Amino acid sequence: MYKELNTSNRILMGPGPSDAHPRVLKAMSTPLIGHLDPEFVTIMDEVKSMVQETFITKNHLTFVVSAPGSAGMETCLVNLLEPGDEVIIGINGVFGGRMADIAERCGAKVHKVVVPWGTIISTNDIKKALDICPKPKLVALVHAETSTGALQPLKEISNLVHNAGALLMVDAVTSYCGVELKVDDWDIDAIYTGTQKNLSAPPGLSPVSFSDRAVKVLENRKTKVQSWFLDLSLVKNYWGGAKRAYHHTAPVSSVYALRESLRIVLEEGIEERWERHQKVHQVLKTKLENLGFEYLVEEQYRLPNLNSVFLPEGNDEALLRSILLNKYNIEVGGGLGDFAGKIWRIGIMGESCTLNHVNMLISALEDMKEFKR
Amino acid sequence: MYKELNTSNRILMGPGPSDAHPRVLKAMSTPLIGHLDPEFVTIMDEVKSMVQETFITKNHLTFVVSAPGSAGMETCLVNLLEPGDEVIIGINGVFGGRMADIAERCGAKVHKVVVPWGTIISTNDIKKALDICPKPKLVALVHAETSTGALQPLKEISNLVHNAGALLMVDAVTSYCGVELKVDDWDIDAIYTGTQKNLSAPPGLSPVSFSDRAVKVLENRKTKVQSWFLDLSLVKNYWGGAKRAYHHTAPVSSVYALRESLRIVLEEGIEERWERHQKVHQVLKTKLENLGFEYLVEEQYRLPNLNSVFLPEGNDEALLRSILLNKYNIEVGGGLGDFAGKIWRIGIMGESCTLNHVNMLISALEDMKEFKR
Repeated sequence: MYKELNTSNRILMGPGPSDAHPRVLKAMSTPLIGHLDPEFVTIMDEVKSMVQETFITKNHLTFVVSAPGSAGMETCLVNLLEPGDEVIIGINGVFGGRMADIAERCGAKVHKVVVPWGTIISTNDIKKALDICPKPKLVALVHAETSTGALQPLKEISNLVHNAGALLMVDAVTSYCGVELKVDDWDIDAIYTGTQKNLSAPPGLSPVSFSDRAVKVLENRKTKVQSWFLDLSLVKNYWGGAKRAYHHTAPVSSVYALRESLRIVLEEGIEERWERHQKVHQVLKTKLENLGFEYLVEEQYRLPNLNSVFLPEGNDEALLRSILLNKYNIEVGGGLGDFAGKIWRIGIMGESCTLNHVNMLISALEDMKEFKR
Repeated sequence: MYKELNTSNRILMGPGPSDAHPRVLKAMSTPLIGHLDPEFVTIMDEVKSMVQETFITKNHLTFVVSAPGSAGMETCLVNLLEPGDEVIIGINGVFGGRMADIAERCGAKVHKVVVPWGTIISTNDIKKALDICPKPKLVALVHAETSTGALQPLKEISNLVHNAGALLMVDAVTSYCGVELKVDDWDIDAIYTGTQKNLSAPPGLSPVSFSDRAVKVLENRKTKVQSWFLDLSLVKNYWGGAKRAYHHTAPVSSVYALRESLRIVLEEGIEERWERHQKVHQVLKTKLENLGFEYLVEEQYRLPNLNSVFLPEGNDEALLRSILLNKYNIEVGGGLGDFAGKIWRIGIMGESCTLNHVNMLISALEDMKEFKR
């Protein structure tokens, strides 16, 4: 009744997942070992160390949440916040909104800095928010807003946040391993990401990292973390510490895949990888603009790896996306929220960030009689 | 610096993960498709339908949590409970204790029915608890206590629970697809399990199911669910409903593996699979007892697939486990809590439930000069 798995050979150029390297797929087919096997403990240590290298941090509390990026987001918030805490959250797309939603579920008082989708939160916006709420516990920003393709500058805001005595929390799901990101240099206190974007591993895990300043906040909590599964006071003993304590069963195969994808990143070099995303972006941008596409985000705040573009007038975006998927096996993403039906989100991330990917997409568009320039 | 993944070829006979079928490992190496691809939506529908078949339920709200079994446990509790709710929780091992911990984090008033590890909660125990707390919202029990190997009878207690107007919640992590489990017949209102036990898929996902009675409770909540990631009012629109709404990025490769492992279960037949676990257990039991092992749990409440046994006197369990692992590549589990250092937990689950597995383990013990009968 249920047939053998038989999926189409997709080219993934949406907002994630991206194409996985054959080495990563092969790693996942490695037979399982136990999640408490000394060999698996070594693998966890290696993964932790490679996550530190790619986040460019020495943070001791660096590990991988056994669930997708959204659970990484929730991990940061439920552990750092307690009922009554005041937080400032920048909202310029779906994921800032999601952070605010979770912070409210933690009982925090959320000061939302809301700017139009496609723009970024300015230093001045944060200054104004600090005038209203001068002693927040936490300021949270989305480094790369996956719903719009906006790249949030962090360094200047980081100083402002720390001068106010607050922690800086950052969503790096779509920036990690694709654009410049320096956790220690930029003094980020809590950061989470996903595996299925520029890392080109399958979705399902969320690397996270916490500064010593954040760890102190965790240690001084007055209340229990509302989630058991995400409670760092328990999880951290599984991912490190002198004695490994069982917490939950780690997703062994997904960790194999993550390990291999991190190896590939380090073989390429993290800065070389950022550059590759920039270079391929420039080619894609020129070709898209030649076809009449227009970028949603102002050039200086544009993510190279996630291109949010308005289609040339007179095109039916849903029809074109469906032809791309069904005839050319190419996936691009549609818009979210107010931009649903208006923009495409074209991802060139990790293994999907090649000139061949760009050419396949552009040529398919050029071939399509339904596409109007 | 980081070498190619190179794990030992383990024989997994601990409390999980169990050995995965080569077809399951192969399914995971299938290239990714997008998590909103119509082909992936079909895969989700098939997985949902196979989870219903294996839980033996028609429950519409049946799906897979994108995280391990512990997150399935938390999904049930955070969605069904609100602050101030009264619950009765049976504790006869680690996992009952974990349910109580999570329920308390939900702000519930928890009535704990505590019995010695290795025994089960009797109908009378629940009756007494209902005398003290006659109108609980929920009664939660562990069907198969992974820390002790005890199999909890549910049918009679189910009547009692429903006569009190409460919901019955069940942890089926180690029973699902290995011992008799009939969700509709036994009138279970909320159930969760894991993939890495009798299903023999990699760890990382948690199939769950909710009765219509439980769905009504979800719909009548007065407060928001404290977890965004596990909030069923959001997740259910991703896993079903007229229009699929994006919630989080599903772990595509893990879902491939789950689909294949469910196909294998249905090819064997769910009742035939239960019988296989019983038959192999009888062989293992005879051979273990011949070597001087003694079972922790009374025969009628013994899990066939997780054998908790005291070693013959004079044996150093940690030394023997380490020889088994390092010389014979066989993993068995140690004890937890009060039984740490005292018992072994020998799993014969799914693909690890074969006569060859039993013979490998028994022969290794017979060969070992360090093992004293």
